[in-house]
Amino acid sequence: MVQSAESRHVKYKMTLQYLGGRYHGWQIQRSGATVQGTLSEVLSRLAGSNVVVVGAGRTDAGVHALGQVAHFLFPIKDSIPDLRRALNALLPWDIRVTRVARAGRAFHAQRCARKKRYEYRVYTGEVLPPFMHGQILHLPRPLDLEAMQRAAELVVGRHDFSGFAASTTAVRDRRRTVLRSEFVGRGNRILYRTEADGFLHHMVRNLVGTFLQVGLGERPSEDVAVILESGDRRTAGPTAPPEGLYLVRVWY
Amino acid sequence: MVQSAESRHVKYKMTLQYLGGRYHGWQIQRSGATVQGTLSEVLSRLAGSNVVVVGAGRTDAGVHALGQVAHFLFPIKDSIPDLRRALNALLPWDIRVTRVARAGRAFHAQRCARKKRYEYRVYTGEVLPPFMHGQILHLPRPLDLEAMQRAAELVVGRHDFSGFAASTTAVRDRRRTVLRSEFVGRGNRILYRTEADGFLHHMVRNLVGTFLQVGLGERPSEDVAVILESGDRRTAGPTAPPEGLYLVRVWY
Repeated sequence: MVQSAESRHVKYKMTLQYLGGRYHGWQIQRSGATVQGTLSEVLSRLAGSNVVVVGAGRTDAGVHALGQVAHFLFPIKDSIPDLRRALNALLPWDIRVTRVARAGRAFHAQRCARKKRYEYRVYTGEVLPPFMHGQILHLPRPLDLEAMQRAAELVVGRHDFSGFAASTTAVRDRRRTVLRSEFVGRGNRILYRTEADGFLHHMVRNLVGTFLQVGLGERPSEDVAVILESGDRRTAGPTAPPEGLYLVRVWY
Repeated sequence: MVQSAESRHVKYKMTLQYLGGRYHGWQIQRSGATVQGTLSEVLSRLAGSNVVVVGAGRTDAGVHALGQVAHFLFPIKDSIPDLRRALNALLPWDIRVTRVARAGRAFHAQRCARKKRYEYRVYTGEVLPPFMHGQILHLPRPLDLEAMQRAAELVVGRHDFSGFAASTTAVRDRRRTVLRSEFVGRGNRILYRTEADGFLHHMVRNLVGTFLQVGLGERPSEDVAVILESGDRRTAGPTAPPEGLYLVRVWY
């Protein structure tokens, strides 16, 4: 009796941390290193055959992850008792696998995701500590935290986020439910935290770009409602730089 | 009347943060970038003449600083209203000047230092978060924190630290007064903090190397007293790697 190729493979769910600075984002591209490509290469080497890695979210170039999730099919191998250890030994230091576990056949890292959390970090002090370099946005200007908090609250709920999506977004239904959207300040560090059932391309960075304009006094908090209403990307602020953004967690 | 060259210069005290990973230590060397050399180059460029920088402590290759202090003489220049800003604009991102202030003629960053604080950071978790890479020692093994605390306490007070000094140390009087020597644990992170009126070359790293042997159960806490007594470097543990060490503060 011949076993199918599929049945000799096991589906795994893995959780990842990475520093995005050296990568052209998550998704495999024709040229330039990507996180997905690097993971696929290392897994394929361990498997001895091509392994496809599917991530929960396609982070952009320079964006970091504290808890990205991905799935892949891997052949059963007695020679690899600890897949996490084997992966971390071969991966570059800026991509780390924090957890690997067997997943059910039906598990799909992207399609099964119910909720995601992103964080955006800003440092407002005059001099950026070298220890934070590339891991936070350096904006050495006073920000009106309360105005930013008011603006952030306005996106909570179910809205069409066309006004905050990349103009190239192909997705048709741009309604998303934002469950959390808040700023927290600690001295020179400001943190924006948001959770939603899904995010459009550039959505968090476009929101933050607009909130920062509010914090700098360049526009009123209420503009956020106007942008949501208009659905016009041109009315929102600029896309905030990638180095402040973290994919923190994915819920299933 | 001719003014002396000296009188047209002002003495400055500056406070610095740096990541040591890309430098061959503090002190200028024949080849390879150093923190002192990089600072001297940038200051000389701003001054239009050679500027010598004197640091409080000569940190080794790979060792970091949260509060290194240095002094230098700089010509009076109306064209540079903000010396800190001018320096940070020209310095590489991994060296930051956090403070520049005029100092009295008698001030000497090394000779006037009354006390210094160093910290040594250890990460004991299985997977090192990429965000900490090069900024902490990764030792993924269980450590007996209480045994390390007992060992650390034994060096408090005035002792001859020959047993913990680099064997090449040229200094004759190796007595130093340690005012603080303690371990603090927070989950997977362990921090060693020490303060003394001065530290011999490699002293903190040799202490930590020995404390880690104690934490791993390779030798008893009491060995620290034996090493102090013997004054023999060969009896102590190995020099702990540089990436965990920080010069935190200098008191005057």
